[in-house]
Amino acid sequence: MTDTGQSVAPPSTDGVPVTRVLSIASHVVSGYVGNSVSTFVMQLLGLEVCALNTVQFSNHTGYGAWTGTRIPPSEIDALYEGLKKNELADFDMLATGYVPGDEGVEAVGKIARDLKSRRESGGEEGQTKFFWVLDPVMGDSGKLYVSEKVVPVYKQLLPLADLITPNQYEVEWLTDIKLVSLDDVASALTKLHADFRTPHIIISSIQSVLNNGEFVCVGSSMSTDGKPRAFSITAPMLKGPFVGTGDMFASLMVSRFRHAAADASLLDKPSWMSPDNIKATDLPLARAAEMALASMDRVLKKTGEARDRRVKALDENDYGAESPLKRARYMRAAELRLVQCVEEVRNPIVKYTAKEFKEGMLGL
Amino acid sequence: MTDTGQSVAPPSTDGVPVTRVLSIASHVVSGYVGNSVSTFVMQLLGLEVCALNTVQFSNHTGYGAWTGTRIPPSEIDALYEGLKKNELADFDMLATGYVPGDEGVEAVGKIARDLKSRRESGGEEGQTKFFWVLDPVMGDSGKLYVSEKVVPVYKQLLPLADLITPNQYEVEWLTDIKLVSLDDVASALTKLHADFRTPHIIISSIQSVLNNGEFVCVGSSMSTDGKPRAFSITAPMLKGPFVGTGDMFASLMVSRFRHAAADASLLDKPSWMSPDNIKATDLPLARAAEMALASMDRVLKKTGEARDRRVKALDENDYGAESPLKRARYMRAAELRLVQCVEEVRNPIVKYTAKEFKEGMLGL
Repeated sequence: MTDTGQSVAPPSTDGVPVTRVLSIASHVVSGYVGNSVSTFVMQLLGLEVCALNTVQFSNHTGYGAWTGTRIPPSEIDALYEGLKKNELADFDMLATGYVPGDEGVEAVGKIARDLKSRRESGGEEGQTKFFWVLDPVMGDSGKLYVSEKVVPVYKQLLPLADLITPNQYEVEWLTDIKLVSLDDVASALTKLHADFRTPHIIISSIQSVLNNGEFVCVGSSMSTDGKPRAFSITAPMLKGPFVGTGDMFASLMVSRFRHAAADASLLDKPSWMSPDNIKATDLPLARAAEMALASMDRVLKKTGEARDRRVKALDENDYGAESPLKRARYMRAAELRLVQCVEEVRNPIVKYTAKEFKEGMLGL
Repeated sequence: MTDTGQSVAPPSTDGVPVTRVLSIASHVVSGYVGNSVSTFVMQLLGLEVCALNTVQFSNHTGYGAWTGTRIPPSEIDALYEGLKKNELADFDMLATGYVPGDEGVEAVGKIARDLKSRRESGGEEGQTKFFWVLDPVMGDSGKLYVSEKVVPVYKQLLPLADLITPNQYEVEWLTDIKLVSLDDVASALTKLHADFRTPHIIISSIQSVLNNGEFVCVGSSMSTDGKPRAFSITAPMLKGPFVGTGDMFASLMVSRFRHAAADASLLDKPSWMSPDNIKATDLPLARAAEMALASMDRVLKKTGEARDRRVKALDENDYGAESPLKRARYMRAAELRLVQCVEEVRNPIVKYTAKEFKEGMLGL
C-alpha cells in the first residue's frame, strides 16, 4: 500500500464541511479528564473527533490509586502510521493534551510537523489551514506532574503550535516569569509571542489576589509585528477544586475558535490570524473565549451544586478517619457533570465579555 | 486500601438519578465502531458511560489495513480492579461488545458475575436491578470473525445476560437453527429463552427473502413460563453496507430500554421483566426497539446520502484499479455520520411500530 498523501485524497466534505480533529490525550474508564471529557465536548459541537488515547487508566490519578497503562511512544507513531496508510490523516486540527514523558511529547511533535507539512504541500487555493491547539500539560498549582525533561520539549514545540492553552503555572515554566501581578501576565504574553512566535495564547484562569471571588481569563492574538493584542474576561470564581476543567476548556476552545475563525473568514489564513486592524476585544479568539467560559460557568455551577449535595451526604455518614477510600469518595463527588450538561455545552449564554487588557491594570 | 463493596457506597444520585454504564468494547481512533460509536450515543441519551476499551486500533478492520493493539485479558481484569478499589464499580448496567478472544470474553463474564452479585448483596429495598446488555459479537453475513473457541464461552455466559442483541448469523451459531423462514426465527427465540433463560432478545435486522426492500426486527421478552412474547417491526431496508450499525443499535437499546423500563416502573424487578399480562406489543422492549430503529433509520439515511455523494466523487475521479487504498476510500465513505446526527439520536420520530409476531407469518 502506498501512502500518496493529502494531495490526492478524495474530497473531504459531503456537502457539509466537517472539521476533522485528531485529539491526542489520556483516557480514563470512569470520570472526566483528557479525551474522556474533550471527545464528548467537541462531538457535541459538531467536530469529527479522532481520539488517540495516550493512556487507559481506570480513573484519574487524583484518586490516589488507579490501574491501567500508558502506551509507549512507538505505539503513538504506529497508530498515526495506520491512519496515514488509509488516507485518514487529513486532519483540519490537532488537539493535544496529556502525553506521558518527553519521548511521547516528541512523538506528538513529529505528528504535528507531518500534518502541517502535508496540508501545506497538498493545499489547494483557499484550503483551510491546519491548526494545532497545544495544551502544554505539565502541572498545576505549584506542582509539576510530568518529568522536568518534558519542559524543554514543549518549549521546542511551541513555535509549531497555533494556539496554546497553558494554565498559570505552566506559563511560569514556559516564560520563567512568576505571575504575581497583571503586569507580569502582560510580560509573559509578550515573551511567549516573541520567543516562540505562538500566534494565539489563552490562559483560562488566573486567580485574583484581590481575593474578591473572581478570576481572570487572559488571551492574546499576535499582530504581524509580533506584539500581543490582549483581552481579559473576568468572571466569578466557583468553589473548587474541580478536575478536568483544563481539558474541558481546551476542547471548548478548539470548537469555538474554529467557529469564530470561520465566521471571520479566516480559515484559509496562516494560523487563522486576524488582520492588524482588528482590536483585541474584536478578535475571534475573544469571541471563542467568551463562549467557552460561558459553558464552563454553567457546567461548573451544576457540578458544584451536585458535588455539594454529595459531599453533604458523605459528611453526614461517618466514614471515619482520612483514608484512601475517603479520598476516592470526595474525588468522585467532584467529577464533572458532563452528560447532564448537553445544553450548557451547545447553547451557553454569554454573560462575561472581553475587555481590553493593558499593562498597569490592577486585579491580580 | 480495603474494597468494602457496594453496600457502603455513598448515595449514587445527586438528586437526579443517572444511569451508570460500564461499556466494554473496542476503540478506533478514526471512524465509528464499538465504543467509538456507543459512548457518544449513550452519553447523548444521558447515560454516564465508563468506556473500557478492549482494543485501540487506528481504524476498523474492514479497511483491510490497520495498526494498534488489543489489550490482554489481564488488563481488562486490572482496570476493573482499579474501579473496584475506588468504589467506582457501582454500575447500573453493563454493555459489552467486541472482546478479542475466548479468554477476554471469560474476563468480561467474570466482571458481569461480580457486578451482579455485588448489586444483589448490597441491595436495599427498591434498588434498581443490575442489567447486562450482551452483544455476542462473533460474525456477520456468513463469516465468523472471532475464533470458534469464543462460541461456547458466549453460550456459557448467555444465562447471565438480561438482554442479548445478536444478529441473524449469531443467532444461528447460538441456536444451531438456520434462519430461513420467520418460523425459524420463532423457533430460535423459543430455544434461546428455553436453553439460556435469556429474558430479553432483540435481533435488529433480518433481511426479507421476499426481496421487497424491507427488513424485520424481531424482539421478545420471556414470560414467567419461559415462553417468548415476540413482536416484529418492519421497516425499509437502506442500501448498505454500513459498518458499526450493530454497535449503534445495541447502544441505542441500552439507553432506550432503560428509559422504557423506568417508564413502566420495572427497574426494581429482576431483569426488568414485565408481568405476564403485558402482551408483546405493549412490552417496554417493543417501545425501546421502536425508538432505537427510528434513530437508526434517520442516521443511516443521512449516512447513505453523504456516502453516495462521496462515492460519486470517487467514481468520477479515476483512481485506477482495485487497490488497498481504493478499498480504504470506499470504506471511509460509508462511515456513520454520527456527530451530524445529535437530533436524530436524541429526538427521533417513530414511524415503524411493533406488531405481534407469530409462527406461521410470512415475510422472510
